[in-house]
Amino acid sequence: MRNIDQHNITEAVIARFASCDNPRLKEVLSSLVTHLHDFVREVKLTEPEWMEGIRFLTATGQMCDSKRQEFILLSDTLGVSMLTVALNQSRPAGATEATVFGPFHTDDAPHVAAGANVAEGAPGEPLFVEVEVVDLQGRPVADAEVDVWQADEEGLYDVQRPELGDTRRARGVLRTDAQGRTHFRSVVPTAYPVPTDGPVGCLLVASGRHPWRPAHVHFLIRAPGYRTLITHLFRDPDPYLDSDVVFGVRSSLIAPFVHHASGPLLDGPHSTLKHRFVLDAEAGAGAGAPAR
Amino acid sequence: MRNIDQHNITEAVIARFASCDNPRLKEVLSSLVTHLHDFVREVKLTEPEWMEGIRFLTATGQMCDSKRQEFILLSDTLGVSMLTVALNQSRPAGATEATVFGPFHTDDAPHVAAGANVAEGAPGEPLFVEVEVVDLQGRPVADAEVDVWQADEEGLYDVQRPELGDTRRARGVLRTDAQGRTHFRSVVPTAYPVPTDGPVGCLLVASGRHPWRPAHVHFLIRAPGYRTLITHLFRDPDPYLDSDVVFGVRSSLIAPFVHHASGPLLDGPHSTLKHRFVLDAEAGAGAGAPAR
Repeated sequence: MRNIDQHNITEAVIARFASCDNPRLKEVLSSLVTHLHDFVREVKLTEPEWMEGIRFLTATGQMCDSKRQEFILLSDTLGVSMLTVALNQSRPAGATEATVFGPFHTDDAPHVAAGANVAEGAPGEPLFVEVEVVDLQGRPVADAEVDVWQADEEGLYDVQRPELGDTRRARGVLRTDAQGRTHFRSVVPTAYPVPTDGPVGCLLVASGRHPWRPAHVHFLIRAPGYRTLITHLFRDPDPYLDSDVVFGVRSSLIAPFVHHASGPLLDGPHSTLKHRFVLDAEAGAGAGAPAR
Repeated sequence: MRNIDQHNITEAVIARFASCDNPRLKEVLSSLVTHLHDFVREVKLTEPEWMEGIRFLTATGQMCDSKRQEFILLSDTLGVSMLTVALNQSRPAGATEATVFGPFHTDDAPHVAAGANVAEGAPGEPLFVEVEVVDLQGRPVADAEVDVWQADEEGLYDVQRPELGDTRRARGVLRTDAQGRTHFRSVVPTAYPVPTDGPVGCLLVASGRHPWRPAHVHFLIRAPGYRTLITHLFRDPDPYLDSDVVFGVRSSLIAPFVHHASGPLLDGPHSTLKHRFVLDAEAGAGAGAPAR
């Protein structure tokens, strides 16, 4: 094809995928090209705007390292992450809803016993969390892995504090007991802005958006025979519950963090949180399959 | 908004741009989000595919440096660059057509006098190029800047040869004389593959596409009062004229490179190329405005 114009170019690009022997890749690329071209045509993208887009994407890639994933942040703030979660994580009524994974999970969190203080020095009011993991019939899911991570009272994750090096805090991996239960101590999370010192922060400012996420604790819960659940518990009240910068809030995930001036667990101010997570069975595993 | 789902999320994201005080940015972002979400919904993007997309974009950004622009290459190979050119560079009948800029232009090409050999040691059969720059009425455009760059007979640009360091060859900047003419010596370009050692190369392979561009010489021509022209002259014949990996070929830009076994310009094999470039007046400059 020698005379490409704005009308026939989409067809011309898609025709080039004719020899692609991966039908799913062909489908994804053809759809991507169609929608990307429709966008460019709809706004009649100018050449300086195109160049600005190239610069933005390049800077976004170059901001990424082992502790910072600026493209996930971009996807999060444009609602693409939550849309992908919503498309893939629809669950039956009664099962705990999923939300975005976020960029701050690490694979090297300490494995700790029930009752541990995962804060490990992270600043904040003490928080005592009791977790129960059950199936759709309410039966305990024993030996489920409960991976938790969160920001401290300054709104920072450990990986955002260069002074900590590879030290991990305010994160840990627990296992449920025979009753599907575990518990741990941590700190009360606070609302925090997503990182604004990169290209995505510039885009938020330029587009008149605030960078805040409502306070939350992340949970990744897995057990054989069940669908892995990646979710948060959001602290109520929080000024950003209705305007989470990454669109991750679901009403069912807003949980009461109960404040105590002093109490049986601790002398002095602290909070408590109890939550029951309901897992649904993995496709093919049969409803209510045992955990092991 | 606390209960985002796959149906209402697009509206929710667009609503966040309500406070954007740049109407064009708001328009571009709203359209981008709409089409990006439509793509994700249409293919029902899976979470592993989403992660693969994040990895691909990150690797593409990290492949970029001062001599390599992998995001431009991605845009080129998906037809986005040529679509943007086509949308912005429509020109009146008779004016020379524009095509993609490509990633290999540099701002430090030597400024040379008419008749110079810009090859500077680049390998290839000698090529003598005569350029004429005129307006739509056929009147010469004097003192136009003619910036040329090209690959050598091995299909490589100078910036792709690490051994050259910052040495520039097979590129140069000339100026037209009072008759709108200039001429230079270079080498006959050959077809070449775009760089395939990065993420875009992997995508081409995975999607069953060849990475070749038909042989061409790049021209960037500018003169006060005229629209800047960024284009190529393609060598005829070439096996890739119908399947340029970046969709840049336009019939009007296919030019005869005439081969001579020996001739008045040189003893031994060489080629000649003559081309008349027709510039159209800049908007507001009035048709046929003088060059200065």
